[in-house]
Amino acid sequence: MLTLDLPKYKTIESISSSSKEYISFSQGTVKISGTPAPIKKHIQEELESDVLDYYQYVGGIYPLRKKIAEKLSRKHHVVIKTEQVIISHGSIGGITTTCLTLLKEGDEVIIPAPYYPSYRNIILFSKATPIYVEGYIKEGDTWKFDIENIKRSVTAKTKMLIISNPSNPSGVCLSKEEVIALKQWCEDKGIYLISDEVYDNFIYEQDYNSFTSHIPNSNFVMRTGSFSKDYAMSGWRVGYIVAPEHIVPSLIAVQDGTLCCPNVIGQHAALFALEHEYLIAEQINIVRNNRDLAWQLLQPLIEKEIISFVRPQAGIFFFIKTNHKDSEALVMDILHKVKVALVPGKDFGSSEETRSSIRLCFARQEALLIEGIERLLNYF
Amino acid sequence: MLTLDLPKYKTIESISSSSKEYISFSQGTVKISGTPAPIKKHIQEELESDVLDYYQYVGGIYPLRKKIAEKLSRKHHVVIKTEQVIISHGSIGGITTTCLTLLKEGDEVIIPAPYYPSYRNIILFSKATPIYVEGYIKEGDTWKFDIENIKRSVTAKTKMLIISNPSNPSGVCLSKEEVIALKQWCEDKGIYLISDEVYDNFIYEQDYNSFTSHIPNSNFVMRTGSFSKDYAMSGWRVGYIVAPEHIVPSLIAVQDGTLCCPNVIGQHAALFALEHEYLIAEQINIVRNNRDLAWQLLQPLIEKEIISFVRPQAGIFFFIKTNHKDSEALVMDILHKVKVALVPGKDFGSSEETRSSIRLCFARQEALLIEGIERLLNYF
Repeated sequence: MLTLDLPKYKTIESISSSSKEYISFSQGTVKISGTPAPIKKHIQEELESDVLDYYQYVGGIYPLRKKIAEKLSRKHHVVIKTEQVIISHGSIGGITTTCLTLLKEGDEVIIPAPYYPSYRNIILFSKATPIYVEGYIKEGDTWKFDIENIKRSVTAKTKMLIISNPSNPSGVCLSKEEVIALKQWCEDKGIYLISDEVYDNFIYEQDYNSFTSHIPNSNFVMRTGSFSKDYAMSGWRVGYIVAPEHIVPSLIAVQDGTLCCPNVIGQHAALFALEHEYLIAEQINIVRNNRDLAWQLLQPLIEKEIISFVRPQAGIFFFIKTNHKDSEALVMDILHKVKVALVPGKDFGSSEETRSSIRLCFARQEALLIEGIERLLNYF
Repeated sequence: MLTLDLPKYKTIESISSSSKEYISFSQGTVKISGTPAPIKKHIQEELESDVLDYYQYVGGIYPLRKKIAEKLSRKHHVVIKTEQVIISHGSIGGITTTCLTLLKEGDEVIIPAPYYPSYRNIILFSKATPIYVEGYIKEGDTWKFDIENIKRSVTAKTKMLIISNPSNPSGVCLSKEEVIALKQWCEDKGIYLISDEVYDNFIYEQDYNSFTSHIPNSNFVMRTGSFSKDYAMSGWRVGYIVAPEHIVPSLIAVQDGTLCCPNVIGQHAALFALEHEYLIAEQINIVRNNRDLAWQLLQPLIEKEIISFVRPQAGIFFFIKTNHKDSEALVMDILHKVKVALVPGKDFGSSEETRSSIRLCFARQEALLIEGIERLLNYF
């Protein structure tokens, strides 16, 4: 039996959701005004017919695959074919399908750290071995992507690299040159590159460089995406994979086993959402304002050198360095004393920098954000 | 890369769903009057709030787990704890989670044939080896469960056995003695026994013997279930696993990677459905009548010895023996000539009996059932 643990923050989330006393900054979800009302209204209407009731095609409903292909083609100035898009159970389900298809026992998967915790278990139940590499180094008030460190970790067994871009938890976006260099290196070595791009619309201060543009000309590059963040639809469980065409039939055959098909209601909601992209802009604006507000509110702790962190250029998290060597005891103490849920750094990696850090999700209602940070100021 | 194929019937289903000209008896779904209106009305109401919008606990929402535990405890006269129930993405998602947790490379999994086709790919992407055994032997006008044949297939590598009970495609229900004998043998050998019981309410002519009753006293027995069939909710993707307590934490950690959480709308719909069990009875009655009607309508072909089959005591399928050695060409010819979708026997196993058979799902609207069978009579 494979004995796996849940990431620590899942336990913290369970505690914090048990009572209204808690304010949760732990879960990576945009929790402001719920899934946009027009999407829900559309589903209410569709529930009058039977279009949502039955199994649909295992790779996802065709109009949604087509719409995603069109959107990504337009956005990234390339041609993504409908057949290259597979609808998945969130981005996470897409990564699972991909890993189950491409990995076997003995394979190694490079994960640049700090990293999103769920990659670990997916690689382990795919019977491969995760290889954690310090991929982002903090230098003063920026994070530097360390491709040389990643390159040094390659072995004859390296089969895949999984990266989140923008990064969860650090918010780092790769530059155009870094994207090309990483992609080129993976292709030269014959390594599959999976880019998890669920925060690709939460970009605040620069151009965004997606790996999507390289998929049409590669046998190795693929990306996942999600409706959970952009449209605050995390409960609806819809994401997608974009992959080189020759891999798609196997991905779909694997997904037939994991899902039979993605849930149909979520897919129809996602299709409607894509047809009304203005709904994204509203969410993003609020989240950007949240980031600036939370940054400002936390200044007293920064000035007193109790905490420090890089203000992220993308994403929905602060990855905050504390003065504690291992932040877990601190996170649990904050949870119990002032009822604020955060995530301990060791969920994201094992370096000293990472273990001393805590992750705070600022995509919350303004009043809760203010109240929660107030509690943190009092705690410290 | 793992190169897998979809079961053949998925392609047939894709063709038949491309135009209204086709009548599909291929997919194993209850397609009569849609998901019951009260369930959909309840979801329409809940969409007014934000209770469906966000991630929930990875193992499923507590009230649904509790309600399933209570229902199964009552039905099977045992105590199933809430903590033993995990909500999954359909029964198939539950089997995936279970296999990913319990299997490793080199392990063998016994599958009594004829069997549900998706088990094959799940075992393969779990990196184990499926071992097909003729588990059901047709003797005159009944199917006999052949436990001795199953026992003969055990090796030092046997780790698991997966069975559907009632069986898809044959409709066989195990007797009380067979359930006990199989369970006892698995325990003696240290083999996990997964019983896929999605048709456990479609029982027409005898008592039903579930493996559920043996879960509380076993470290090896588990079952899956589904809302797809009972409540015609296949598009909503909700099922469950009931497992020995010591396995549950690992199952949940695996599911965190495959799903993050099951879709929340489906879970709320399932909870409402369980609180209104009378909705099942209505569906079952219609499906039972369908079975009798379809049986009667097919008599001319049976009398002319063009086809023969055991009238099933459970489930939603006829598994029909034809005079063709391999039924695939026949199925494709029927699909093209009279636009009726069926499933070729070889999706379910490789014996001569199985390869010559076709599967017909009779859980359809009466008018479509009559029209489809009329077309089959004309074809033959």
